[in-house]
Amino acid sequence: MKKIVIGLSGGMDSATLLGILLAEGHQVHACTFTYGSKHNKYENKAAFDLVDFYQLKGQPVNHHFFNLEEAFKNFDSNLLKSGGEIPEGHYESENMKLTVVPGRNLIFASIMAGLAESIGAEAIALGVHSGDHAIYPDCRPEFIEALKAVLGASTEGKVKVLTPLLELNKTTILGKGLDLNIPVPYELTRTCYKDQEDSCGMCGSCQERLEAFNNLQMIDPAQYEKRS
Amino acid sequence: MKKIVIGLSGGMDSATLLGILLAEGHQVHACTFTYGSKHNKYENKAAFDLVDFYQLKGQPVNHHFFNLEEAFKNFDSNLLKSGGEIPEGHYESENMKLTVVPGRNLIFASIMAGLAESIGAEAIALGVHSGDHAIYPDCRPEFIEALKAVLGASTEGKVKVLTPLLELNKTTILGKGLDLNIPVPYELTRTCYKDQEDSCGMCGSCQERLEAFNNLQMIDPAQYEKRS
Repeated sequence: MKKIVIGLSGGMDSATLLGILLAEGHQVHACTFTYGSKHNKYENKAAFDLVDFYQLKGQPVNHHFFNLEEAFKNFDSNLLKSGGEIPEGHYESENMKLTVVPGRNLIFASIMAGLAESIGAEAIALGVHSGDHAIYPDCRPEFIEALKAVLGASTEGKVKVLTPLLELNKTTILGKGLDLNIPVPYELTRTCYKDQEDSCGMCGSCQERLEAFNNLQMIDPAQYEKRS
Repeated sequence: MKKIVIGLSGGMDSATLLGILLAEGHQVHACTFTYGSKHNKYENKAAFDLVDFYQLKGQPVNHHFFNLEEAFKNFDSNLLKSGGEIPEGHYESENMKLTVVPGRNLIFASIMAGLAESIGAEAIALGVHSGDHAIYPDCRPEFIEALKAVLGASTEGKVKVLTPLLELNKTTILGKGLDLNIPVPYELTRTCYKDQEDSCGMCGSCQERLEAFNNLQMIDPAQYEKRS
């Protein structure tokens, strides 16, 4: 059993990462961040629900919640409450670049690494996946390689970086999560970027999620305003 | 004139960095962080005083203040209010490792880079110097190289890293700051690690500072409890 710090947004990918690491028998410290995004309220709730789910099953997961709205004030992104409209379309289409939050994963990873070093965890784990690569620079393999190097230098080799989903797509990730001994409770996860209770079904994030369930010929258990 | 985001702690090195970049004619966005350290109250005040000083002289400096106590909660360091005593001794002696704050410079740099990308600044600048190398991993040249790479990947090359003091010692930095057209007002800076109004004169940080003034045969204008 290793002690591992993970980023848990409340979305499908980080929920699957959590399920996989628990299935492998690790002690997981899950970090959830609120940073001023339009969908934070809903994805934060999902993260808490996921941790409750696993804790009720006796799984070794601790939860660390960070309010980082201060760090991201004055940042420019349509994903933030301060930014413009969430674009609609495919997850990999050009207009989804409006949802990039500058430096987000590096900020999260650096805080997670500081926590990891402080509590004696040997790695941080991120749920980045191949569908993220086109639009989000801080989800690409070259970013992850550079992150490993900078954390190696910063922690004198004490903190590693794990990204078991890096080359997988959403459909494969969903399949993996459902195949676990304790299947990931996807009904508790939140994917939509918009500031509304029901998922919109139109933003790139919703579309990628619906596509994954469609590919496995399943009905997504999330509530949608519209299933495109 | 370039737009540059700098880390301004309120200490001598970042004050000199600010003075140098203003002397070079840049527009500076200075970022000051409070993160739960014992000396934050005093160094934060110094940072505000420094910005006031330059703004009153008509210099183009904006100030961004971030309360990051949330990010550093549960971090393990004697520099933090939650940690043990500040050690006394030389700045480069082994016991000063107790003052390392895990991941601090990477957390600060990643937030500064996100701000830089958001406001269209082309670089971030850090006041790390050669005296920091022995004890603080996140001040060493290999960390800075890795930081350049990870910010290059994260920002798609939009944000550079400047560290003009990286290979200089405190004495040389002090000399440089005094030689500027507008000399750096070192009487406004704060270096001591302890939670007390007057500088202690005994912690490694005080000792390195006093040594620099001694080397230039000057009296440090800061108030000390004891000049060791």
